[in-house]
Amino acid sequence: MSPLQALPTIAATADAMLSARLQHLLDHKTKPQGSLGRLEALALRIGLIQRTETPQLLHPQVLVFAADHGLAARGISAFPSDVTWQMVENFLAGGAAISVLARQHQLALTIVDAGVNHAFAPRADLLNRKIALGTADSLAGPAMTVLQCARAVEAGVEVVRNLPGNVVLLGEMGIGNTSSAAMLLARLAGVDIAACVGRGTGLDDAGLARKLAVLRAVLDKHAPAQAPLEALAAFGGFEIAMMVGAALQAASSRRVIVVDGFICGAAVLVASKIEPALLDYCVFAHRSAESGHARLLDHLEAEHLLNLELRLGEGSGAALAWPLIDSAVHLLVQMASFASVGVSERDAV
Amino acid sequence: MSPLQALPTIAATADAMLSARLQHLLDHKTKPQGSLGRLEALALRIGLIQRTETPQLLHPQVLVFAADHGLAARGISAFPSDVTWQMVENFLAGGAAISVLARQHQLALTIVDAGVNHAFAPRADLLNRKIALGTADSLAGPAMTVLQCARAVEAGVEVVRNLPGNVVLLGEMGIGNTSSAAMLLARLAGVDIAACVGRGTGLDDAGLARKLAVLRAVLDKHAPAQAPLEALAAFGGFEIAMMVGAALQAASSRRVIVVDGFICGAAVLVASKIEPALLDYCVFAHRSAESGHARLLDHLEAEHLLNLELRLGEGSGAALAWPLIDSAVHLLVQMASFASVGVSERDAV
Repeated sequence: MSPLQALPTIAATADAMLSARLQHLLDHKTKPQGSLGRLEALALRIGLIQRTETPQLLHPQVLVFAADHGLAARGISAFPSDVTWQMVENFLAGGAAISVLARQHQLALTIVDAGVNHAFAPRADLLNRKIALGTADSLAGPAMTVLQCARAVEAGVEVVRNLPGNVVLLGEMGIGNTSSAAMLLARLAGVDIAACVGRGTGLDDAGLARKLAVLRAVLDKHAPAQAPLEALAAFGGFEIAMMVGAALQAASSRRVIVVDGFICGAAVLVASKIEPALLDYCVFAHRSAESGHARLLDHLEAEHLLNLELRLGEGSGAALAWPLIDSAVHLLVQMASFASVGVSERDAV
Repeated sequence: MSPLQALPTIAATADAMLSARLQHLLDHKTKPQGSLGRLEALALRIGLIQRTETPQLLHPQVLVFAADHGLAARGISAFPSDVTWQMVENFLAGGAAISVLARQHQLALTIVDAGVNHAFAPRADLLNRKIALGTADSLAGPAMTVLQCARAVEAGVEVVRNLPGNVVLLGEMGIGNTSSAAMLLARLAGVDIAACVGRGTGLDDAGLARKLAVLRAVLDKHAPAQAPLEALAAFGGFEIAMMVGAALQAASSRRVIVVDGFICGAAVLVASKIEPALLDYCVFAHRSAESGHARLLDHLEAEHLLNLELRLGEGSGAALAWPLIDSAVHLLVQMASFASVGVSERDAV
């Protein structure tokens, strides 16, 4: 048994009657049927999440979970681990991409220290949920203990439980965390690690080959870690574990979850293996340039909104996709119907 | 000789020094190089348009050009022509998709009556630039006379000349206008008409076959109309001609042009055959589900931002893409650099 407290439970959103009513509404808006493309399915999905024909997206919250990775010492990233804490300072100072985008779209931005190797001065928009000063080296042993993993997941649950609003945008920062995401994808989706590994923040060919060799060895070392939380403990990291809890709690409280890129997607993968209904609540913001991400989205049978060759993380893709999600809801709720404004329907020639 | 007055001239934006400075700025922002994907090229493009390292997008203006098409009587659309004027009323009343999106993003919205078969009551946000009550049937003769075509292009020039700001988002409404766009693409890009024709607002298979047969006959009838403005006069419509003028004037005054879907793209195609440097100023908002659009974008070697299977028109795709364009500029101008905030650069392990 896991030392975890009971995890949040998640109800599937399927509701044939409501779905039919939402589709009827969309089909009678003043536009050709289906002409808003994927935004129509998105509006319907959000209606089902909120159990209403008139959904509203309130107080969207960007959560950026940050942590360090013991495996980074093995040379699997183009950047040094110090960049994790330096970027947290940059988020808080307003100079990072996610800071700029959150300002642009008036998204509340909270940084969660899930386990950064740095002592931060307290700040209003920085939550200290540090599990340790980074995970352990997963080539030597598990990245975290089972207890640490449980505490991290629970911290994610608690962080979301205390947030206002009904939308959570997940983001992350952690030098080395594409390695954790790649190993989780390989293990939980049964994909060969070579197809899961990418250049991360910018490895060259030699660096990529080294990363692949290291990750193969780590996977071999933790061959018995097959269950979702065991794999999570073996491969890390704290920010991913906290996003697992955050996603489970967000879905449990029927919030829309906007999933950023590869690493957030790996957290959703873990969480969906525990509670498959989680996926009903997820909007996948984009397909990134990181090569494993397409495989991950395929495995989850997930549609994405943007395809802009992003590979930054921080929740930046989620924030960039946010206006589209808001648009989908506005179009559903605010557009006129043919009948209401006297526009002729099709084939009335 | 065309009866046109001198058309606006357009300067290419290429500037190797400024381009290098912009790229250097982007490369030293606190993110892995290139990790903002296509938004980086977009920011650079806008910097070149505005000839500055600190571009600003001011007072973005959505222009929706509306007109009717004589060819619509041949059964080439799923909707009756009356929908053109009814949708103009819907735009003005705030119930259409573009109305909702313009409100969401605080975009000024102006509707231009380029030739709708309806007498509108005057309204502040409706410009009467009516050339005629719709084009003529292009299967019987040219859609417009050379003089009408010139007047329409000039009206588009004049409309943009009087707009504030430095961004124009082009949209359109006109039952039957995917036919004009398809014929312009076929003629000016040398693509077989079968690859240019799509279902428009929702034709079934029989309707699609009829549309293709009609358009082949129209193309045959106007075989001599090979030059851009001759083809435009032959195939219509007034809204497309006015967008040609609007695009030329927007580029001439160094504004960013956000191009919506297939029909706006066809206007840009015509205009770019007159002034190839126009394309430097164009941002292609999306690739639509209308099958000719991908061919058109390929012909223009244009990258698009969104791919959401939209096929609505009205400028809706341009408005949906607007926040991404604004983001690109905000990221360029507002993000911190590595040096300014003391974040370690790559490979400093």
